[in-house]
Amino acid sequence: MLLDTPAVERLIEAFRRLPGIGKRSAERLALHLLSAPEGEAENLSKAIGEGRKRITTCSRCRNLTESDPCPICDDARRDASLLCVVERPAGAMALEKGGGFNGLYYVLNGALNPLEGIGPDELGIERLRVRLREGIVKEVILATNATAEGEATALYLSRQLAEGGVNVSRIAHGVPMGSGLEFTDSATLAHALQGRSAMQ
Amino acid sequence: MLLDTPAVERLIEAFRRLPGIGKRSAERLALHLLSAPEGEAENLSKAIGEGRKRITTCSRCRNLTESDPCPICDDARRDASLLCVVERPAGAMALEKGGGFNGLYYVLNGALNPLEGIGPDELGIERLRVRLREGIVKEVILATNATAEGEATALYLSRQLAEGGVNVSRIAHGVPMGSGLEFTDSATLAHALQGRSAMQ
Repeated sequence: MLLDTPAVERLIEAFRRLPGIGKRSAERLALHLLSAPEGEAENLSKAIGEGRKRITTCSRCRNLTESDPCPICDDARRDASLLCVVERPAGAMALEKGGGFNGLYYVLNGALNPLEGIGPDELGIERLRVRLREGIVKEVILATNATAEGEATALYLSRQLAEGGVNVSRIAHGVPMGSGLEFTDSATLAHALQGRSAMQ
Repeated sequence: MLLDTPAVERLIEAFRRLPGIGKRSAERLALHLLSAPEGEAENLSKAIGEGRKRITTCSRCRNLTESDPCPICDDARRDASLLCVVERPAGAMALEKGGGFNGLYYVLNGALNPLEGIGPDELGIERLRVRLREGIVKEVILATNATAEGEATALYLSRQLAEGGVNVSRIAHGVPMGSGLEFTDSATLAHALQGRSAMQ
């Protein structure tokens, strides 16, 4: 059977690693690309390579960006005393679309997950701590996802960062439990920001 | 905004061309790949290229295959008098998984769609007609999708092929209208095959 040949299996496997793509979706995508007109598959391959080459990580907030520092960190009109910590670039982007936040971001690029070997080092928490010592940030808003890992990360950060004298808050649980920022509509995100409460 | 940069836009656009991937899914996939660990994006790119290189089209049935003719066309135990016409390789694969069919396939790799410039030439219908003239096939089962294009293709084929003296049948509409073979469970597919009726 075609699906069992190594080249097709590897392609299906590569698609399955993507978020929200299950076994059947991965098979459908692989078969589509294999029978798509000349150029379509090459186009996707090239767009991936090109994207990885042009987009880098902001040295200040760890968000994805074309220029370093990113346009948000570089924008003097934004409130640098407010720092919103998110798990993923998609989370920061969702909050930007909501338009209810005018502070800066810090992107962890993950959440604490000991089983998968993701600890404070992988999340750049030391760099975050160094930044808070600059004394500019007055409040850290923890906007990690409402999942087990996201909650654990928020709890960990609230303990680690509170020492430094900054206020640490958590966005309200307007975000449905078990879901992530990037799947939430703008209105709910605005409520979640508004209803934030002091942690501990 | 990062999503508006050309490299990211092109990547999102490339994902949106895939079946079942909307705007938000495409954005999610693009952002994931851009921030994924070194290797994951390259792995997908490589798997696409490798798949396209190794997998070809069977010269007999136009299905995707590693070897030409494909294992199904090459299998003497299958009933060569029964030919099932499907739109896509995924359709043939779904019928194979169902296990209720022991004939051969012919893959159109599309359906009639004048607006998109897909006519009989693109679907290899002349080659199908030549094949029927060999006199081996006694019944053609039209298993194009239950969509407007699929129905139109079935109607067109039933008229074109009936002249040759072969029986032309259509699978029963157990397949939910508006959906395709690859989204249908095996039991429904088996019913659809069983309940086929003569066309015209």
